[in-house]
Amino acid sequence: MALGDVLARLGATIDGRKGGDPDASYVARLFHKGDDAILKKIGEEACEVVMAAKDVRHGAAPAGLVGEVADLWFHCLIALSRFDLTPADVVAELARREGLPGLEEKALRKVKEREQSGH
Amino acid sequence: MALGDVLARLGATIDGRKGGDPDASYVARLFHKGDDAILKKIGEEACEVVMAAKDVRHGAAPAGLVGEVADLWFHCLIALSRFDLTPADVVAELARREGLPGLEEKALRKVKEREQSGH
Amino acid sequence: MALGDVLARLGATIDGRKGGDPDASYVARLFHKGDDAILKKIGEEACEVVMAAKDVRHGAAPAGLVGEVADLWFHCLIALSRFDLTPADVVAELARREGLPGLEEKALRKVKEREQSGH
Amino acid sequence: MALGDVLARLGATIDGRKGGDPDASYVARLFHKGDDAILKKIGEEACEVVMAAKDVRHGAAPAGLVGEVADLWFHCLIALSRFDLTPADVVAELARREGLPGLEEKALRKVKEREQSGH
Repeated sequence: MALGDVLARLGATIDGRKGGDPDASYVARLFHKGDDAILKKIGEEACEVVMAAKDVRHGAAPAGLVGEVADLWFHCLIALSRFDLTPADVVAELARREGLPGLEEKALRKVKEREQSGH
Repeated sequence: MALGDVLARLGATIDGRKGGDPDASYVARLFHKGDDAILKKIGEEACEVVMAAKDVRHGAAPAGLVGEVADLWFHCLIALSRFDLTPADVVAELARREGLPGLEEKALRKVKEREQSGH
Repeated sequence: MALGDVLARLGATIDGRKGGDPDASYVARLFHKGDDAILKKIGEEACEVVMAAKDVRHGAAPAGLVGEVADLWFHCLIALSRFDLTPADVVAELARREGLPGLEEKALRKVKEREQSGH
Repeated sequence: MALGDVLARLGATIDGRKGGDPDASYVARLFHKGDDAILKKIGEEACEVVMAAKDVRHGAAPAGLVGEVADLWFHCLIALSRFDLTPADVVAELARREGLPGLEEKALRKVKEREQSGH
């Protein structure tokens, strides 16, 4: 199965939870709670990615890190859906910069701006 | 272009930056700096996603949020590569839970455990 | 020296950096860059606290954690100053809830609300 | 009441919750859950500080930001206690760097190192 198909299908399923029963669906519950509940989960899951990576470095199974990145991306999909955006938008943005030159160019330009502002 | 192909190619390109010249490549530079530099970027980019979402809610163009989620996922790809993992691992994990039942079941189970521990 | 005196003096010193030369002062530079630069540092420093705590658990010197919490609080002072607030406001809020009953009550109430919304 | 006295007393009260009944005390519950539960709260509360600051910028009452910084510092005190450290350790570290020159020197040195590594 193509990787992107999973993301696209998952995004569509999440879209379908809008307005759903908050007592029957975790995603419907988050939509019901509002922006801040969704965004707080992104901060929390990012923190869990960092902790899981530290644990892997100290001997834990890599699967733990995979699971936390999956959780983080999953909640990013919810945030995207909340603002009527799709995983395809994000992947298109990654593709647009692809071959890495674009992304690296942007990142290096930022570093250089920071350098110049440092003088 | 399939969404997943972009992630897979980007992951492979990032893998290819390992051991590269830290002065010529942003990704090689992060690999050179080590775990903490990479993980710190995940905390930072997650924070930028949250700020961008707030800005969109207050009238900013949605493209800003797309760009920040792309940045966050990009740095997740770097962290995965750092620990010899791939975007396919994460997407497989999402697929494994797919149809959402699995993901929601897990999330609701967590909430219920939290509830029980609350008594 | 009383702990609070240090925070109060540090807050006043930070206030005095507003409008200062961004090339001569780190704090003046952050004020000059604006809200997002300051807030991003809070996300970044919180992440560093988490990483430092993990490192201490795995044998690093506790001083590393102390330093990161100091960095986090320092950038919180900058954020407070940015919005014309003071460390005294925060400590007064902590005192208001003090003896812990208030804080714990609030936190337990939140947990219970979460529990009820879980049914 | 001196600001620092509040922090010191709060730290001592938190210390006293170690080994307490997880069903009767929010802090005892966090200690019981372990490192990751405490650290996750720091990531979550930092995220809430950022969101509250954004809300204040868009018209919300500043009290919301004060409350979130108080929550963040409160959970930092729990993390410090977890690792047998005290608020006095953090304030001493801030004092050590005080007058700001020290802190700014350190921060500017970091920026310069980043600049040099950028070339």
